[in-house]
Amino acid sequence: MATEFDLIKRFFSRPVSAGLLGGGDDCALFGVTPGLQVATSTDLLLEGRHFFSDVDPRSLGHKALAVNLSDLAAMGARPLGCLLGLGLPAIDEAWIEQFAEGFYALADQHGCALIGGDTTRSLQGITLSVTVFGEVEPNLALRRNAAQVDDDIWVSGVFGAADIACRMLAGEIPLDAALLQATRSALEWPAPRIDLGQQLRAHAHAAIDVSDGLLQDLGHILAASGVGAELQEQLLPMHPALSGLPQHALPPEVLQRAVLAGGDVYELCFTAAPAQRAALEKIGSALGLTLSRIGSVRAEPGLFVYDEARNIIPDLPRGFDHFRP
Amino acid sequence: MATEFDLIKRFFSRPVSAGLLGGGDDCALFGVTPGLQVATSTDLLLEGRHFFSDVDPRSLGHKALAVNLSDLAAMGARPLGCLLGLGLPAIDEAWIEQFAEGFYALADQHGCALIGGDTTRSLQGITLSVTVFGEVEPNLALRRNAAQVDDDIWVSGVFGAADIACRMLAGEIPLDAALLQATRSALEWPAPRIDLGQQLRAHAHAAIDVSDGLLQDLGHILAASGVGAELQEQLLPMHPALSGLPQHALPPEVLQRAVLAGGDVYELCFTAAPAQRAALEKIGSALGLTLSRIGSVRAEPGLFVYDEARNIIPDLPRGFDHFRP
Repeated sequence: MATEFDLIKRFFSRPVSAGLLGGGDDCALFGVTPGLQVATSTDLLLEGRHFFSDVDPRSLGHKALAVNLSDLAAMGARPLGCLLGLGLPAIDEAWIEQFAEGFYALADQHGCALIGGDTTRSLQGITLSVTVFGEVEPNLALRRNAAQVDDDIWVSGVFGAADIACRMLAGEIPLDAALLQATRSALEWPAPRIDLGQQLRAHAHAAIDVSDGLLQDLGHILAASGVGAELQEQLLPMHPALSGLPQHALPPEVLQRAVLAGGDVYELCFTAAPAQRAALEKIGSALGLTLSRIGSVRAEPGLFVYDEARNIIPDLPRGFDHFRP
Repeated sequence: MATEFDLIKRFFSRPVSAGLLGGGDDCALFGVTPGLQVATSTDLLLEGRHFFSDVDPRSLGHKALAVNLSDLAAMGARPLGCLLGLGLPAIDEAWIEQFAEGFYALADQHGCALIGGDTTRSLQGITLSVTVFGEVEPNLALRRNAAQVDDDIWVSGVFGAADIACRMLAGEIPLDAALLQATRSALEWPAPRIDLGQQLRAHAHAAIDVSDGLLQDLGHILAASGVGAELQEQLLPMHPALSGLPQHALPPEVLQRAVLAGGDVYELCFTAAPAQRAALEKIGSALGLTLSRIGSVRAEPGLFVYDEARNIIPDLPRGFDHFRP
């Protein structure tokens, strides 16, 4: 039977670049460009809570790293490296090999070397912890508390698909095979907006990545900045698989909740002065990434969403609370 | 009912020093002294696997950080900060408060600020992940691959108590209340040897912390350095609660296994040239910490333990394999 050390050696010991000391010592070592700060984030992902037991291990490897890289993106940081904690109920080598493939493919894409970690046997379910490190100029990091009154509010990408796919897989809404196929990659293969985050440093005030739902995550920016906001519902970019659905295919409140409160999006929500509009549109075009202006920062506290008739939408859906049963 | 955000705010949002950005943004930020490298390590601790369900939450908070600080110690790094991932089956505020107390007390002692993390509800059992950061001069970091032939092999502290306490609590050996009382703190309140690690940089060649058992962890140094070693059993420093036991209180093989293969020790094992003996003894005295010379590095591969009659002890016990059922 393979031991922990065989396992690490076999699947998680790819060579790392100069300047880094990878797994195989008590600590991993990495250097930082003088004058820059280290940005770091960690996420815990638990089977049955953050992913389904039968998830494709490649996509799980991808996503475990993606959700952390997304935090670096939201800070405007350049990835340096990462650590992986892996608790497994048993050794399934094919599973681990595929997980490692998905993880390394995304790590390579962003120059984020896996430099260390921890593996252990778990008694129940797969447990993952990923920690990422990046570097960023201290004064240019995109903070949550930097939104200014009259800033535009922007989001990258399109919304709603991950939530709909997740609810279909969980049996909360009826399974539609075509719709699942069209939305599933949003849930399982999110693309962290690293390039966008680095370009935003010079143009945006505040930024956050949307992991717990747009309203909730934007709410963190507003609370930290001591401001309010209004959004226009018709400006919210809905995933084409959802906006193209025939009427009554899904109840309108399910779609509204998916866009406004659906988690697991990993797009960026950011605020910038109106003078930055042309520059931001150019950045979006260059990256091939839709950037949508969805509302404005206001001095009055509160977050209001208006419909096309300019009425405030009441009873907005809430985002994800990690301690909700 | 408290939400995730209430919980973070209430128990894990102590102010951090200047130069650090703590929890409450997508990433935590920290600075590094120019010219130094970042040393980092992460550990995953799972209920029922790494700690008992009824463990004192203060000691669990202490130990979750201690085992990671011990990796910084083994590298000779100075602690800078840490991240905490906390997966809890339910919100028990008294439990969390005590856990936070134990964690922060040790963090404060070593100037290792808690700068970020992740909290989530777990479906089964408590899940902890801790990541620590320190800084170290790249050329002085204590690597595993730096042992030299004829180096002395040293250990800090005393051995065996954590293993005996753990086996009593697990019901593997008979429970003796007095012995449990005398050994339990070694298991639940290990002291990371941060000060020793920093002083060793100028005197030791290779170092490791003993988490999986002395023979196994020393074996990692030997394998990485391409050398062998011999140890003298009578030089191994046994915890006084064990060396003072009446004969037959515990079978000799249980004591031998506790010392040679018992995990969870968090003392340092290191190698240094014989010319360093006086300097190392002085360091031990100044720190009030027993440093014991237990053997020597040899060119011939293999790790041999000799008894007082100068016979090689056969069938040595193995250390902890994280994937053993």
